[in-house]
Amino acid sequence: MMNEEEFSNWYNDIIERANLSDKRYPIKGMNVWTPYGWKVMTNIDRHMRNEMERTKHDEVCFPLLIPEDQFAKEAEHIKGFDEQVYWVTHAGKNQLDVRLLLRPTSETAMYPMFSLWVRSHADLPLKIFQIVNTFRYETKQTRSFVRVREIHFFEAHTCHADFEDAERQIKEDVEVMDRLSKKLCLPYLLSKRPNWDKFAGAVYTLGVDIFMPTGKALQIASIHQYKENFSKAYNIKYEDENGNHKDVHQTTYGMSERVLGAVIGVHGDKKGLIMPPSIAPIQIVIIPVLAKGKNEEILKKNRELKEELNNNGFRAFLDERDIRPGSKYFDWEIKGVPIRIELGPRDIENKVAIVVRRDTGKKIEIKREKLIDVLKKIMDDISTELYKKAEAQLKNNILSCKTIDEIKSAESFVKIDWCGNDDCGQRICEESGFTMLGTPVNSEKLDKQAKCVLCNKEAATKAYMARTY
Amino acid sequence: MMNEEEFSNWYNDIIERANLSDKRYPIKGMNVWTPYGWKVMTNIDRHMRNEMERTKHDEVCFPLLIPEDQFAKEAEHIKGFDEQVYWVTHAGKNQLDVRLLLRPTSETAMYPMFSLWVRSHADLPLKIFQIVNTFRYETKQTRSFVRVREIHFFEAHTCHADFEDAERQIKEDVEVMDRLSKKLCLPYLLSKRPNWDKFAGAVYTLGVDIFMPTGKALQIASIHQYKENFSKAYNIKYEDENGNHKDVHQTTYGMSERVLGAVIGVHGDKKGLIMPPSIAPIQIVIIPVLAKGKNEEILKKNRELKEELNNNGFRAFLDERDIRPGSKYFDWEIKGVPIRIELGPRDIENKVAIVVRRDTGKKIEIKREKLIDVLKKIMDDISTELYKKAEAQLKNNILSCKTIDEIKSAESFVKIDWCGNDDCGQRICEESGFTMLGTPVNSEKLDKQAKCVLCNKEAATKAYMARTY
Repeated sequence: MMNEEEFSNWYNDIIERANLSDKRYPIKGMNVWTPYGWKVMTNIDRHMRNEMERTKHDEVCFPLLIPEDQFAKEAEHIKGFDEQVYWVTHAGKNQLDVRLLLRPTSETAMYPMFSLWVRSHADLPLKIFQIVNTFRYETKQTRSFVRVREIHFFEAHTCHADFEDAERQIKEDVEVMDRLSKKLCLPYLLSKRPNWDKFAGAVYTLGVDIFMPTGKALQIASIHQYKENFSKAYNIKYEDENGNHKDVHQTTYGMSERVLGAVIGVHGDKKGLIMPPSIAPIQIVIIPVLAKGKNEEILKKNRELKEELNNNGFRAFLDERDIRPGSKYFDWEIKGVPIRIELGPRDIENKVAIVVRRDTGKKIEIKREKLIDVLKKIMDDISTELYKKAEAQLKNNILSCKTIDEIKSAESFVKIDWCGNDDCGQRICEESGFTMLGTPVNSEKLDKQAKCVLCNKEAATKAYMARTY
Repeated sequence: MMNEEEFSNWYNDIIERANLSDKRYPIKGMNVWTPYGWKVMTNIDRHMRNEMERTKHDEVCFPLLIPEDQFAKEAEHIKGFDEQVYWVTHAGKNQLDVRLLLRPTSETAMYPMFSLWVRSHADLPLKIFQIVNTFRYETKQTRSFVRVREIHFFEAHTCHADFEDAERQIKEDVEVMDRLSKKLCLPYLLSKRPNWDKFAGAVYTLGVDIFMPTGKALQIASIHQYKENFSKAYNIKYEDENGNHKDVHQTTYGMSERVLGAVIGVHGDKKGLIMPPSIAPIQIVIIPVLAKGKNEEILKKNRELKEELNNNGFRAFLDERDIRPGSKYFDWEIKGVPIRIELGPRDIENKVAIVVRRDTGKKIEIKREKLIDVLKKIMDDISTELYKKAEAQLKNNILSCKTIDEIKSAESFVKIDWCGNDDCGQRICEESGFTMLGTPVNSEKLDKQAKCVLCNKEAATKAYMARTY
């Protein structure tokens, strides 16, 4: 386990050296997506777009600005956000009649339109999503991808005829999260957030938390059941088969660039990033090993190899820079390229290639004729093993605690028995300094006569706790 | 030619019925991209991304907000925009120390970072682009895609060692524009804007104008040569091979969602949109013609056809809705799907399919075994003919005028002889009510003894003029 300072230094250093993002932009917490980081992020977005197509969500793009009066319609929601929003008050030389805010999330931008779009049961379910930038005026210290003021954001919003259909949607969202987590090799903990920590306006919130190398939890996504909370405020009604007018039930699924922060933190090592193959901008880097008098021939073979790899569905890159191979290894290790191939005169002669895995550092010689098949297998192995390694990290770092003191001294996630009472729960948090992530979504069996960790009354449920980002 | 009112009614009606965009959002000029319109726009973006990859531009994403002091560094630039920007003055309950503006374009966001990124000649050329939303406080009447306050925007920015290399870049930009125009079947007029109409901060500006059915010009893109104007203001210097520090030369290439407005206006007809195949979300719609007792078999054949088309690289859609085929024809004509296929029991028996072109309305019977090959050919023909038709429209609507009165009464674009003097040019505009688009980029031959249309002095150049959006 790393302490926070070690982690912070390593994390910031790697992001800078891999050139994922530039935080020298003259507004704190609003960073520039540099080409390599943006490629990784858009690869993640691509997986989400595929998932949305599979689950029949339509992509839309809503305006960034929201009029203050629309924003204020759902009382809980505005209470949750009004300390955090940026206000546009002037345009040109004019003061605006109605102030406009930069979306912190898009409920209040979308729902006035949903009220126009949904007329009858035939319009339901309505399932849409967008990938946009959102804005939150963070007062805590900022950190690339983890706590920023302009946030690259995925948000799906749905309307349903009834609670049951909305619940089905939430199951589908969890499935989508699951499939994405496999692509990112990022196992996660899914918890139903306690009442005092659910999303502003939600009936309940599921949180998706990642175990970071510091032992802390990083929330990367959340899924909300709104029931009719927003539809009543925004007048989103439909006519059912019998001509009755009913409020729709709604859900949302939000996820931010924090997924990239999690990928960096969970997989990276001393040498730099380790990119899961499915999102690596470059999956295989080829380094030609030159030899006097034979360079033309060697480069030709290297270029042929690159073509062959690209034609076989790999994202391959040939590094022809005029620097030592060692410097090249170093650069691509920082950037986390999953596989490196070295191809020199002896390899060409022997009809082999040298393949080096970024995650394990293992170096093997592979027959040229079998190279493509073996690379496919290695690429799959890398994904599987990155996932397994992270899964073991998560599972081995959930400590069952019976007392507040045990929680306090834990350096990992914590599992407790809890009476389920909100006041008691909040006191557990205060006294331990931990945050309650929530209760398991697939309810876990309690021991007979399990007692609440604080009040000692009969426990109603297990609960997860952690220090959090 | 349509008059402005006819065109406006038709244009707004088509956008609403094809559901490209919803302008009922509670801020005027900030519209919602609905799924169909967003698909078309992202298809256009995809072509631009491919062009940028081909020409080795890296994609980035810069913050939306720009601090006032950064914005104010280039005097001409701020003068051009300060009436048009939205100002963020508050965050949460706090007033900000430095006001932030929503980017109207990204020079002043990017160039402070370029100053950090560019160190030596080895960093040049720097070629980047982004596709983002920009903001302009329009006071004129808004119109979907043509005049909006939140703009879907493509912008490429480059830095070069010298003027010559920057000029090479501008040639490349024109080539990119040319290739895109083929994809969109949108011939354009390229003019060097007159001095009084160049971009704020540019040394010169090339404007890309489309001939609209009203006879007016719609500017969809522009390319700017900045020389060292911005690099001096933002301190973007490099060290050359001899250790001298020099200011970089810069160019930009900007293009907005207006391209979609042009596609709608140029290709559409009374029945609705006509989508160029390369950007049509659905290229082929299949309408099953059912017959009692045979529906299962007919649907099966229709589904097989859809699969086959998709496997052959077409974007095909099977419309299985339980409504009359005639209603389906109507719906897909509005949306401009290039090709419709009708497949019923008799066609299945005779091993044929009925293929209908959206652009010409021509209906032909094609042997099932030759269908794929013929469809590929038809799809190419549609693109070619849409382009040719629009090209003829443009070429036949440039009227050579010898007097101000002739210009005044023109209902098309106009070509004049001009002395090249700015004062005289601006008077030509005032007196004729036309805008000068500029001078031809590939200089056109003047007649011997050609005289300026206003001052009657010796003409120095041809110039294009038009009424504009």
